[in-house]
Amino acid sequence: MFKKTHIKTLLASVLIGSMAAISTPAFATNEAMLDLLKILRDKGSISSEEYELLVNASKADKEKAEGAASEAKAAVKKATKDLPKINTKGKLEIKKGDNKFRIGGRLQADTTVGLGDVDFAGSEGGSPVTEFRRARMYLSGVLDKVWKFKFQYDFADDQSGATANTNGIKDAYIAYTGFKPVSITFGHHKTPMSIEELTSSKYITFIERSQFVNGIVADMGGGRQYAVTAKSHFADQVTLAGSYYIGSSNEDDAENTQGFVGRITWSPWHEKTRAFHLGFAYNHNNFGDGCGGGCIDAEPEVHPGADILEIESSDHKNADVWVAEASGVWGPFSAQWEYAAAEISDAATLPDLDATAWYIYGSYYLTGESRRYNWKGGSYKQTKVKNPFHKGGWGAWELALRYTSGEFDNSTAPVVDSEADVLTAGVNWYPSNNIRFSANYVDVLHANGPADAELAGDLSSQAVADAEEAEYFVLRGQWYF
Amino acid sequence: MFKKTHIKTLLASVLIGSMAAISTPAFATNEAMLDLLKILRDKGSISSEEYELLVNASKADKEKAEGAASEAKAAVKKATKDLPKINTKGKLEIKKGDNKFRIGGRLQADTTVGLGDVDFAGSEGGSPVTEFRRARMYLSGVLDKVWKFKFQYDFADDQSGATANTNGIKDAYIAYTGFKPVSITFGHHKTPMSIEELTSSKYITFIERSQFVNGIVADMGGGRQYAVTAKSHFADQVTLAGSYYIGSSNEDDAENTQGFVGRITWSPWHEKTRAFHLGFAYNHNNFGDGCGGGCIDAEPEVHPGADILEIESSDHKNADVWVAEASGVWGPFSAQWEYAAAEISDAATLPDLDATAWYIYGSYYLTGESRRYNWKGGSYKQTKVKNPFHKGGWGAWELALRYTSGEFDNSTAPVVDSEADVLTAGVNWYPSNNIRFSANYVDVLHANGPADAELAGDLSSQAVADAEEAEYFVLRGQWYF
Amino acid sequence: MFKKTHIKTLLASVLIGSMAAISTPAFATNEAMLDLLKILRDKGSISSEEYELLVNASKADKEKAEGAASEAKAAVKKATKDLPKINTKGKLEIKKGDNKFRIGGRLQADTTVGLGDVDFAGSEGGSPVTEFRRARMYLSGVLDKVWKFKFQYDFADDQSGATANTNGIKDAYIAYTGFKPVSITFGHHKTPMSIEELTSSKYITFIERSQFVNGIVADMGGGRQYAVTAKSHFADQVTLAGSYYIGSSNEDDAENTQGFVGRITWSPWHEKTRAFHLGFAYNHNNFGDGCGGGCIDAEPEVHPGADILEIESSDHKNADVWVAEASGVWGPFSAQWEYAAAEISDAATLPDLDATAWYIYGSYYLTGESRRYNWKGGSYKQTKVKNPFHKGGWGAWELALRYTSGEFDNSTAPVVDSEADVLTAGVNWYPSNNIRFSANYVDVLHANGPADAELAGDLSSQAVADAEEAEYFVLRGQWYF
Repeated sequence: MFKKTHIKTLLASVLIGSMAAISTPAFATNEAMLDLLKILRDKGSISSEEYELLVNASKADKEKAEGAASEAKAAVKKATKDLPKINTKGKLEIKKGDNKFRIGGRLQADTTVGLGDVDFAGSEGGSPVTEFRRARMYLSGVLDKVWKFKFQYDFADDQSGATANTNGIKDAYIAYTGFKPVSITFGHHKTPMSIEELTSSKYITFIERSQFVNGIVADMGGGRQYAVTAKSHFADQVTLAGSYYIGSSNEDDAENTQGFVGRITWSPWHEKTRAFHLGFAYNHNNFGDGCGGGCIDAEPEVHPGADILEIESSDHKNADVWVAEASGVWGPFSAQWEYAAAEISDAATLPDLDATAWYIYGSYYLTGESRRYNWKGGSYKQTKVKNPFHKGGWGAWELALRYTSGEFDNSTAPVVDSEADVLTAGVNWYPSNNIRFSANYVDVLHANGPADAELAGDLSSQAVADAEEAEYFVLRGQWYF
Repeated sequence: MFKKTHIKTLLASVLIGSMAAISTPAFATNEAMLDLLKILRDKGSISSEEYELLVNASKADKEKAEGAASEAKAAVKKATKDLPKINTKGKLEIKKGDNKFRIGGRLQADTTVGLGDVDFAGSEGGSPVTEFRRARMYLSGVLDKVWKFKFQYDFADDQSGATANTNGIKDAYIAYTGFKPVSITFGHHKTPMSIEELTSSKYITFIERSQFVNGIVADMGGGRQYAVTAKSHFADQVTLAGSYYIGSSNEDDAENTQGFVGRITWSPWHEKTRAFHLGFAYNHNNFGDGCGGGCIDAEPEVHPGADILEIESSDHKNADVWVAEASGVWGPFSAQWEYAAAEISDAATLPDLDATAWYIYGSYYLTGESRRYNWKGGSYKQTKVKNPFHKGGWGAWELALRYTSGEFDNSTAPVVDSEADVLTAGVNWYPSNNIRFSANYVDVLHANGPADAELAGDLSSQAVADAEEAEYFVLRGQWYF
Repeated sequence: MFKKTHIKTLLASVLIGSMAAISTPAFATNEAMLDLLKILRDKGSISSEEYELLVNASKADKEKAEGAASEAKAAVKKATKDLPKINTKGKLEIKKGDNKFRIGGRLQADTTVGLGDVDFAGSEGGSPVTEFRRARMYLSGVLDKVWKFKFQYDFADDQSGATANTNGIKDAYIAYTGFKPVSITFGHHKTPMSIEELTSSKYITFIERSQFVNGIVADMGGGRQYAVTAKSHFADQVTLAGSYYIGSSNEDDAENTQGFVGRITWSPWHEKTRAFHLGFAYNHNNFGDGCGGGCIDAEPEVHPGADILEIESSDHKNADVWVAEASGVWGPFSAQWEYAAAEISDAATLPDLDATAWYIYGSYYLTGESRRYNWKGGSYKQTKVKNPFHKGGWGAWELALRYTSGEFDNSTAPVVDSEADVLTAGVNWYPSNNIRFSANYVDVLHANGPADAELAGDLSSQAVADAEEAEYFVLRGQWYF
């Protein structure tokens, strides 16, 4: 007699067993079924032979189910195993295993208008100078886990009379990162000197870095050099870096310059919206062939402007340079100050020459963003826009004001000692993270320096005697990734 | 007593229930089972406690089944979520979310042979000139949905005596596309002038654009300029575009040129194999420093040829330029005509100078393709090959014939008024969409112009007095993506 | 009466049926169920109507199951169908269907120190010359299955006084590969001449190729030329290649050079760790404008070194060149020898001039690797590092020694017949496949040649009279992908 309870047991078991089996295509099981069969056999509902048959059938089913499951798994695995991780969020990066490749570029298109009497390129009435200030492509990444590499070239079509080359090879190096936190970089890269110089031109607050401070830094072993650099950091507060360098691919002068730079930074706090930075760098420069024609030169905070501060000397053989840095972020407000001093020495008959310059600036995001401090690099990085324009927001808006002052000795006619003060006011609009439009107003408050036509550069006939009244208006459009 | 009907109900329910469950790993359900249990309980086949137990077991099963299903779903999702869309069909494009990146290049290798007496590069007997006419790499794409960007550089190793630079920065811009159908482009790009100029050099019918018309257009504010351009289209027929420009990165002359170009096009129909285009462009040019040495110059429809039409003037300050365009496609046949006129004016003591030029050409695809009109750009785009060579077809074969005529005033010794007519016959073989081989025969039918050796360019000693008999044969191989 | 056997049949069928169904989400079936229903109907356990109903229900279930299965399949397919194959193993390659794209670069940073009296760049005391010897980016790949393409540009900032350009367009071609094993290449590429020249600079054993042999090869139609080249191979042993060429983008001299090169190589065995190569190339050169200033010149096995062997002639019109090549690999040891001879002839009044040079070298991998011979190219390819540094190994270490000797006739004052012998010892460290650091010591054993200051190059004031005692130390860091 077949009893209801049997049926119920059967029913429950079948349900549970089949449900369980269904529920686990990936982990096929039929334990419940095997249990049920045992019960049915024990109760005599099925014979031992029938039991064996059913168990074998069940096992075959399980194998089939598992086969199908692993087939499905294999299909997904096959579909994914050859796939690198591709990051398109404001960059183009392809990553897999121990290797990573990144491709990118940067474009900065500038138009500079001289107000009042200031002319460019020999034309009257303040004809604007339009140029690609930077136009770069790069390949970078990681090879074999510990070797970071980069090659970046600047195709800028320098239309200004500026003496420094803006095009040519930029970052071009390989770095060993296997001794964490120490990294060792070989090739052409920035030596550790000046927070403003070390902050990428993509992220600097004004259209140009402070040209007086940067004139000293970039001409005296800072900026990109053929170099070997060791960097490290510790205690979540301090970074140390040192470079031995031997000339730059971007400088025509002083091919045989060699030197050593060391830098220490201290950042007691570096949170998302609050940061504080102190830095100090020292550099000793040896000029193989003398410091040269444009030993140090500085434009009035605009790229196409004529040099208004300059030291020329082919006689001086060495230089010592100091840079002191302070910077901080308090919510939307940030401030930055740097002081640079160079002593150019060891001329056979001439006295030593000093160049000093400093700047101070503040910036404020009307839209609530903060400048983002990169404590391990002792520099700033990309501003993250809170409400991007393409999502219906206003993007980020930033106002900034800078005062720069410099004083350069000189001893070679016709150039004389020069000093100048410049005020720059700027507004930046970041519709989204990787796009920025900037407008700067630059006012040469005071300039007492060389009026030498040759010094004033090829494209600019502006006599520096006029510079006391020079005012400029500069526009920039920028994208990068 | 256990009835057959019960069994049948049970059976049917189990079958349907389990089948349903099996069939939907992604949408696990056991409604049928719960219904069955209800029926069985209501009929007294199972007790209420047994019912509760079985319902709980069933629910647990369901949860398990759903867990497994969402696990499977998650595996697929995980495998796909980080994947951009990568397009490799004749291009390399990586796209994800609001961002798109494209990497590409173009290579055009030319060999030009002067027939008869025509020599290049000072050698006798018509030594060929071999050069990369264009050799470009670019990065382009979309950042944050509405911002189109591009940076393209031409590495061409210009081996000809042509006065226009062929290498350097080409497209380099950012464009805002958020106000559809209006787009606003900032940077270095082509101003809207001339259908032939606006058609990419990848797609033009002959190896060179009509040099007389193009001489006027490209030297007078057409081609790539530092510019701001607004474009729009409406009624599926009309496009409007206007640019304010301020010099070009590709022209050494006339650095301070500024001007405004406007263009309107009308295309009453633009289907796959039938299109009609009328266009009109007007440009006003202001030369800051006078129109310059090569104010307008034009080669005899081959790149290494010496200029045979030219206006030189550093005195004239302004120019007005008109271009009229007509083009059409009828199946494999297409025809195109352009007329360009420039009036160069405002010299202190010299009279105004006129340059006029026009061309007409027809092309015919032996293999049945059609030129493809891009109505929104008012230009032509890539020909799609019907039977590619690599798939056993013959590729596309195109025959074309062009007649060009130009007449330039001049007033500066030793250059005199010049006029010339040139016939060009061409054949193009497109083995597949992105590859093309071309042969052009160029015959200077008539040239009455400058015989000035300096004018004739650095590499070409061909006295233009000889040009009446000049014939050239040009070969090009091209790939791009 | 409902029998146990019925239940058992039912049970078994349900179990097997449902298991089978579960096990095959991708191939949903309910054959067993249909069989069961037939049995039950035949036995009268269910009525015909009930049977029809259940069969329909079962079929519906099957369709549902199949729907779910194909939905799952479609999800995986959708996730994978747009995916190209992306290879990041030491390269960046994106491949799909008939198209393949590759992006890459190469950086070689060199520092050369002149030991003893040898100066560079006019400075005293052996100031080092630091430069990027090669700094390249490229795009390459396959379009439409049979068309291989490449464009490669070298951004090197040549800081040496070497006469040959190192920057500019390198590989820039399209090749048809549809007639296997024959390939036909159009554009700028290496003509088939000299195993050392044809081996990529990424893989050569020393920092510089043997400059005397390479001077003859590269200046006489070898290296990269605008050319059409056909290549083939057969019998797993022999390769044949021939080029017609017409000048080079990388040479300023001899723009009008044209010629033909043919090469045959024989490799009776070419296994992983054992290879043997014999090669012979012949080239006939026609100089349109005479062989020119630096008809053939050769530096002392370092790039910034002044030329110590040179032929100058603008009178000779033709040259015939022979290169004989032998090379082999025996486990970690390899050896290579080449002999090149050029006869420069057809000057109106001057005698023919001969240049001959040869080198021999051996290399040994301390760490057990083998040089890898590429028999189809008749050249060498990348060394595979057995125990990479980033995986805890020592990388690959290679020692090498080379002896080079050359003798150049000359007939133009002030240059006289010149001869020189140079010994180079090198060590290479490959931390992993794509990274290499090299140190070379170069000793000019003997040099009797031109002491002409102009000949000695712009940056190097080293009088070649001093060259007898010249010794150099060179360091290179290299990455590529």
